[in-house]
Amino acid sequence: VAAPSDDAAVWRGDRFVVATTDTMVEDIDFRLDWAGFDFRVLGRRLISVNLSDLAAMGAAPRYALISLVLRRTTTASDVTELYRGIAEQSRRFGCAVAGGDLSETSGPLTVTAALIGRVTSARRLLSRQGARPGWQIAVTGSLGGAAAGLRLLESRRRPASPAERGWVRSQLDPTPQVEAGQALVGAGIRVGGDISDGLYREVERLLDGSSMGATIDVGMLPLVRGLATTSWELAVRDSEDFELICAAPKRTMQAAKRSLARRDLRLTVIGHFEREPGIRFRNGSRVEKLEGAGYEHFR
Amino acid sequence: VAAPSDDAAVWRGDRFVVATTDTMVEDIDFRLDWAGFDFRVLGRRLISVNLSDLAAMGAAPRYALISLVLRRTTTASDVTELYRGIAEQSRRFGCAVAGGDLSETSGPLTVTAALIGRVTSARRLLSRQGARPGWQIAVTGSLGGAAAGLRLLESRRRPASPAERGWVRSQLDPTPQVEAGQALVGAGIRVGGDISDGLYREVERLLDGSSMGATIDVGMLPLVRGLATTSWELAVRDSEDFELICAAPKRTMQAAKRSLARRDLRLTVIGHFEREPGIRFRNGSRVEKLEGAGYEHFR
Repeated sequence: VAAPSDDAAVWRGDRFVVATTDTMVEDIDFRLDWAGFDFRVLGRRLISVNLSDLAAMGAAPRYALISLVLRRTTTASDVTELYRGIAEQSRRFGCAVAGGDLSETSGPLTVTAALIGRVTSARRLLSRQGARPGWQIAVTGSLGGAAAGLRLLESRRRPASPAERGWVRSQLDPTPQVEAGQALVGAGIRVGGDISDGLYREVERLLDGSSMGATIDVGMLPLVRGLATTSWELAVRDSEDFELICAAPKRTMQAAKRSLARRDLRLTVIGHFEREPGIRFRNGSRVEKLEGAGYEHFR
Repeated sequence: VAAPSDDAAVWRGDRFVVATTDTMVEDIDFRLDWAGFDFRVLGRRLISVNLSDLAAMGAAPRYALISLVLRRTTTASDVTELYRGIAEQSRRFGCAVAGGDLSETSGPLTVTAALIGRVTSARRLLSRQGARPGWQIAVTGSLGGAAAGLRLLESRRRPASPAERGWVRSQLDPTPQVEAGQALVGAGIRVGGDISDGLYREVERLLDGSSMGATIDVGMLPLVRGLATTSWELAVRDSEDFELICAAPKRTMQAAKRSLARRDLRLTVIGHFEREPGIRFRNGSRVEKLEGAGYEHFR
């Protein structure tokens, strides 16, 4: 509504607003010397990280506010590429870049976005709370690609196959599940989140405050193409896949699966909640527990 | 609306949304070794910087999203104090902290806030565009305190008088003119902005895209208590005062002045717009121009 020269952006509001913010710090969240990574991909990834949080609520993206803290050595063409990545990923998901801030730092490049989206009612959204014993647990897409890609990037070995290139892409330039999030809500699902902090960590969060537990069936995990089934832990811990997890009674889950299939999206049941506390992984006839899975700063 | 454990915050929306983001980087925007500065004051200042942008639009604050990028050496009690400052300044101005993100860095402490506010209509707000020749220019509060305070802090001399303590406070812990911004709009003023990048720079912005100019009467500048009139340039360039500037025809300005006075707020006419291009400072019988006033990163 207001001119871009003003101190703040103005837009016509929505009835229910969803907002999130995420920061990426150089050498912690990304490395500019990763093969295939550059300022444009960084811009896309910054938007994707935040879009994934909106997707996790089943929200539709609307506006982005960007804050870039650049090193003195950042060139004008780096900044142009960074903005290009931000703009193209925003546009792709129907989000307008409404404003921003530019600063300089003697330290690592630090980029922050705040994304504002909408839901149509206070009830039609995904929340971490409300799962019940007996409900199925499902995930969108495939698992393990981001972690396998990170391992490849850190090893400095060039990806040698289409599968490996796919892994690297899901680490560097993931696609946030914005459409899936809204489709899950549309199909009646109300419990879910994103697993970009790791599948294990997200199951823990869905259990928070309840006395329930969960069993995940390792054989049902939709591992990314090319990942050996023996590497399933990559899909569970520190996994960083930009996919969604959700929980619902079997019948609702089946409806959601059909709804996503019509959009060429995949939803795979991987386990269920149950009364017995703790998180168990059923691997054939064995039941395993993972220690120290998931990743959190300052924990 | 949603639980704080979710990936994003949800709230009931407003018809017209105003949003802004600002970042503060250690050793560029603040120094933790400044006398009287600490993590709590930093938290308040982070919110104030952003509130000042909302004030500049005449908006009412609603929600804040916070992103903190902390050094590894930051202690838990530093973080608590930082949050305390953020929370108390937000609450004071009717703003709820709706969400945030926490990261770590090997570089300087970097804190970002995005603030979301509301205006009641797309027309009832302050914008940098639309000033006309003949209109009066006015500022809220007093000028020069923040710049004088910064000079004192950088000199490492302890403030020696109540006036000097006031200067330091307006640098470290300024009060954003949120109430004044809304009162100006309520009184019919539609052109304005904040002068936290310097009064001169803001007058330039109000002139952007027009062929007009402005004359500021140095004798009318409401200099902060204790500042010598010969130091008036401090009030004009790099001034960083968290005050508002506005422009309107004389009659509207008089109404606004009365409206602010009823709230114990000050509005002082300091000059006017005119057809002749350029920015002039009338100092008694002399007319001066300033070179290189105002401050902008990467300019």
